[in-house]
Amino acid sequence: MKALVYHGPGKIEWEDRARPELRDPGDAIVRMLKTTICGTDLHILRGDVATCTPGRTLGHEGIGVIEEIGSAVTTFHAGDRVLISCISSCGKCEYCRRRMFSHCATGGWMLGNTIDGTQAEFVRTPHAETSLYPIPAGVDEEAMVMLSDILPTGFECGVLSGKVEPGSTVAIVGCGPIGLAALLTAQLYSPAMIIAIDLDQHRLDIAAQFGATHVLDSAADDIKARVMALTDGKGVDTAIEAVGVPATFLLCEDIVAPGGVVANIGVHGQPVELHLERLWSRNISITTSLVDTYSTPMLLKTVGSGKIDPTRLVTHHFKFDEILAAYDTFGRAAETQALKVIIAFEERSA
Amino acid sequence: MKALVYHGPGKIEWEDRARPELRDPGDAIVRMLKTTICGTDLHILRGDVATCTPGRTLGHEGIGVIEEIGSAVTTFHAGDRVLISCISSCGKCEYCRRRMFSHCATGGWMLGNTIDGTQAEFVRTPHAETSLYPIPAGVDEEAMVMLSDILPTGFECGVLSGKVEPGSTVAIVGCGPIGLAALLTAQLYSPAMIIAIDLDQHRLDIAAQFGATHVLDSAADDIKARVMALTDGKGVDTAIEAVGVPATFLLCEDIVAPGGVVANIGVHGQPVELHLERLWSRNISITTSLVDTYSTPMLLKTVGSGKIDPTRLVTHHFKFDEILAAYDTFGRAAETQALKVIIAFEERSA
Amino acid sequence: MKALVYHGPGKIEWEDRARPELRDPGDAIVRMLKTTICGTDLHILRGDVATCTPGRTLGHEGIGVIEEIGSAVTTFHAGDRVLISCISSCGKCEYCRRRMFSHCATGGWMLGNTIDGTQAEFVRTPHAETSLYPIPAGVDEEAMVMLSDILPTGFECGVLSGKVEPGSTVAIVGCGPIGLAALLTAQLYSPAMIIAIDLDQHRLDIAAQFGATHVLDSAADDIKARVMALTDGKGVDTAIEAVGVPATFLLCEDIVAPGGVVANIGVHGQPVELHLERLWSRNISITTSLVDTYSTPMLLKTVGSGKIDPTRLVTHHFKFDEILAAYDTFGRAAETQALKVIIAFEERSA
Amino acid sequence: MKALVYHGPGKIEWEDRARPELRDPGDAIVRMLKTTICGTDLHILRGDVATCTPGRTLGHEGIGVIEEIGSAVTTFHAGDRVLISCISSCGKCEYCRRRMFSHCATGGWMLGNTIDGTQAEFVRTPHAETSLYPIPAGVDEEAMVMLSDILPTGFECGVLSGKVEPGSTVAIVGCGPIGLAALLTAQLYSPAMIIAIDLDQHRLDIAAQFGATHVLDSAADDIKARVMALTDGKGVDTAIEAVGVPATFLLCEDIVAPGGVVANIGVHGQPVELHLERLWSRNISITTSLVDTYSTPMLLKTVGSGKIDPTRLVTHHFKFDEILAAYDTFGRAAETQALKVIIAFEERSA
Repeated sequence: MKALVYHGPGKIEWEDRARPELRDPGDAIVRMLKTTICGTDLHILRGDVATCTPGRTLGHEGIGVIEEIGSAVTTFHAGDRVLISCISSCGKCEYCRRRMFSHCATGGWMLGNTIDGTQAEFVRTPHAETSLYPIPAGVDEEAMVMLSDILPTGFECGVLSGKVEPGSTVAIVGCGPIGLAALLTAQLYSPAMIIAIDLDQHRLDIAAQFGATHVLDSAADDIKARVMALTDGKGVDTAIEAVGVPATFLLCEDIVAPGGVVANIGVHGQPVELHLERLWSRNISITTSLVDTYSTPMLLKTVGSGKIDPTRLVTHHFKFDEILAAYDTFGRAAETQALKVIIAFEERSA
Repeated sequence: MKALVYHGPGKIEWEDRARPELRDPGDAIVRMLKTTICGTDLHILRGDVATCTPGRTLGHEGIGVIEEIGSAVTTFHAGDRVLISCISSCGKCEYCRRRMFSHCATGGWMLGNTIDGTQAEFVRTPHAETSLYPIPAGVDEEAMVMLSDILPTGFECGVLSGKVEPGSTVAIVGCGPIGLAALLTAQLYSPAMIIAIDLDQHRLDIAAQFGATHVLDSAADDIKARVMALTDGKGVDTAIEAVGVPATFLLCEDIVAPGGVVANIGVHGQPVELHLERLWSRNISITTSLVDTYSTPMLLKTVGSGKIDPTRLVTHHFKFDEILAAYDTFGRAAETQALKVIIAFEERSA
Repeated sequence: MKALVYHGPGKIEWEDRARPELRDPGDAIVRMLKTTICGTDLHILRGDVATCTPGRTLGHEGIGVIEEIGSAVTTFHAGDRVLISCISSCGKCEYCRRRMFSHCATGGWMLGNTIDGTQAEFVRTPHAETSLYPIPAGVDEEAMVMLSDILPTGFECGVLSGKVEPGSTVAIVGCGPIGLAALLTAQLYSPAMIIAIDLDQHRLDIAAQFGATHVLDSAADDIKARVMALTDGKGVDTAIEAVGVPATFLLCEDIVAPGGVVANIGVHGQPVELHLERLWSRNISITTSLVDTYSTPMLLKTVGSGKIDPTRLVTHHFKFDEILAAYDTFGRAAETQALKVIIAFEERSA
Repeated sequence: MKALVYHGPGKIEWEDRARPELRDPGDAIVRMLKTTICGTDLHILRGDVATCTPGRTLGHEGIGVIEEIGSAVTTFHAGDRVLISCISSCGKCEYCRRRMFSHCATGGWMLGNTIDGTQAEFVRTPHAETSLYPIPAGVDEEAMVMLSDILPTGFECGVLSGKVEPGSTVAIVGCGPIGLAALLTAQLYSPAMIIAIDLDQHRLDIAAQFGATHVLDSAADDIKARVMALTDGKGVDTAIEAVGVPATFLLCEDIVAPGGVVANIGVHGQPVELHLERLWSRNISITTSLVDTYSTPMLLKTVGSGKIDPTRLVTHHFKFDEILAAYDTFGRAAETQALKVIIAFEERSA
């Protein structure tokens, strides 16, 4: 089969690989239908993710059809159309029992990281029964691809950790795909104000279309002063960090209101300064999180009922043998205005 | 009357001052019975608290007898014995309605900071009806003094913010009075393990007497390794920072388990490094807080029912005209082994 | 001044009464601008509310202008336009400190019940600072009248007690004004399904316009079977009882899913049968509540931001001297299709 | 092997049965070490439990040694000593993902109900990895038997559903084994007052020894008046129903304070009257629940740390071939003063 293989910093190839086989009784083999590329894949490509070693097939998102199941799998069958979660979870370890699936003792973020992933014609998914979800009939399949990672990440790490609630004020710092996913899902809780902040005017335009009540250009504006002016001098109840660099985290520290939350989604490569000399008395919380995907069943219902339309994140489409072009487009997002790209595999009769 | 007055860094005097008078309809004048000294008073004395200016009578803790009430006060009367909360709260602003009394629009930490405080024969207490508590009959009055600040601070900022719960693991970094208050009140939730950490062997001995299941000497031990060994390599569910310097906060970052909380109580004078490059994916929370004293009514019941005995924090007793000696003893705690000192005023017939 | 006075079962008069005067330091005198009639006023008129005795001016909703304030009132001034909450709360008793304002030791539902109310040219409002809300500039005043009682009641007693959340399923049993208020505010949490149930086809039509995803005619349908069919045989996560008779409560018992909540809003006059022989093992909760109005500040923001438009509940308008006609229209709601009626007083220059 | 088999109302036999065999890949076969008898077993014996049909081996509690594991079981091995949960849960269905294991789509209360149970030399346990718990070294094995059902039931259905918290007031209506389990575990949250209520003076004596602050004899006392007197006329914050008949539930309705919870543990055979005409405005909750055993890992830690000693519930010991005598003793608890009985199987070398 064909697979997109990482060969060290800066090097990926679309090449022939052996088709994966069942290894554990809880595994499934899934024939991919659609996949996508994540910002984290670009991190890997830059050599920033030590756990992902050369030779690895990338990708941790997508939907497919079950081709084969292990002997312990009873709730799925060959032929089932499934959503693949970016997090593999056993459902039985201490962390899974606490619904912290991201820290599963024998799972977590494995696909396209510590085992071969979904940017291939076939993928082996461990802990299939607790890591795959049946796709309801009639649901848009591109919407489903957004449920592998980006939508639950924006929702859990940004909106739920950030305690967004009706009438509250929210700032989203960074309007890339993950910030926009937080923006879409924040509206499930009807906050009174959502301030989107970015350097890129095009992304701010999209944020406004997606429901931001205010947009601020971090290149042009005195952001802190603007946020204070919009919030009667208090700051925001929830500041969502969706970039992953010190400057954006510091901005969140500056604009969070007393009693508020800084919800970090960004993947950080270095420490940041925490201004406890100001913040110690402000009754704030700072949260960090890897997505647990415990919200996936709920998001499936929410997408199914039309409350949010995650296909709005999809900007480009590619065939599976154009995946290197897809990487190129996604990698030059500032120019191409790419948010999420869909890579479709050939349909075949089961 | 006599009052302990701050005259700039390093200077306090026990001197004659005019007796305070009612100013607002919600005020009460309280004749002091007992007061104490807080670590924050020493911060003021070092010149670290910019809001507290020379000429200020210090003190934000204590109990007394109401001498006079303003025209709007209906729930208290002259002669009532009352507990004075360190936080003045109006009960009606936006923050008070959310029970974030520490950030009351016309209150907060005022006594001994922005208005004259309780280390005096009389004190004016604003917002009396929502800042004083009747002392139940038969309750130990020294226990009550501990409810002005230290017990609710340890409990709210450490135990409740830290989400201590039955069966959980807790580390308390710093075993001064505030850390010990957290230790006493943490036991209301029956955690399985409480690890007390300090440099001072005497304080560790006290921590063990007060209920710590393990004590670690931060001078001698490799604390991180020891905590990991005690917790099956996971770290603690709750790390309570009760010192206020970068090193102790960094230790908390190091020993908190995935899914855990770092609950900061310490008053910090400088920024600390937040290792987001490690913590971004660990699903932790960091909380800061000034005490809101919303737990005071509950603590009154808990002390009344004998579940905790805060008088264990009291090590020294002074008469009111020995207050400078009390400051000296409390200021040299390492030598004197002082935790909390009680300063008693003369009883007189009402 | 003119006032609508209750003179025993079936008897109300629009008559001259002495203008109210300040009595306590926390009082305000408010000149009414707009009021409305509540289902509870009809209960009083039927003689069902023992606490409301003949001679009482009715009404517990409305907006007005402050005419005069007591000596303890500092946050309001004559001339302020205010929303009058149906619940008077002191902000300082044990229940108020727990935000259970409805059970305030010296407040609760007083207006138009145990003291004279808002269906008059002037009203005395006790505990003014914690029972009145400033009306933000530019907000629709008829929307504000809906915030005195009906919107917070539907929201707190139905939606919040019922734990409505994104993706959940909700049934609202009874589509009178209060059920419709629950329907409007439930959407702040983006449930996947809202099933509206009533006997009246007109009210079901309105429910559909207001956002119900399904409507069921309780006269024609086998409701339980229909709800089970819509929810894959599970029942609803939240069943909101908005009528107050045994049959509708029993229906809620029948249609609540395992793990779900029956949130009672209805005012009941008799006991109901609780089928614990079926329900003991179903992990359900049943909640009752009098509105606490703790959500009023949040609803003010939500209405201000356009997330909900409570004026959709207003069907009829009357001048203040047409109030008897307003009662007649509201009392014959089945015929007149009245939901909420607005009674406007004459504007005058301040 | 020998097993205790139900043969219809009133009939049980200790007889030879075929040893159970693995059936599903997730099964384990456990050789029993210790088991006990539950009040529910007596319900079965009275013919009250329709799902349990003649021919069934009874018992849903106990500890044992794993004899054999199915092909999908990876986290347990032959020879492991395990605690058997009364609830079998797959860990992967919708209910399990929500931690409502009692309603597992392919599990729930199966053992000794819909499949053969633990009052036998061997038992087949489905969903072994998510329904068995390793027994920590050094823990008292009789304490472990109490963790199969009675301790998590008292804790989850009574204490957690009842929101017991530091300083709160609790009434436990019924001091049989399950009420006493609630009494033991309630103290993990340090309530200020626990009122134990029963007809049996011996059980009240035990309740007092186990930590009740007050005991009331429901035969002799005017319970409602006594509870009101003890609680300043308010009633209790948590009323735990641990009997399962209408009279005790009605008592809970009478003594719950505004804002409080009635937490039902009792297994009810008939409906009860819910006095909504009084309760609709009291802001109370009523909860029902089958134990989910989500607290088992936490209770294991709590018992391990010595915070509670569940062996205090054990009053009698029997050998496995005395099980009919054990039933007799447990069935005549009023005379024999039995709480929990331990039935021990022969130890053999692995």
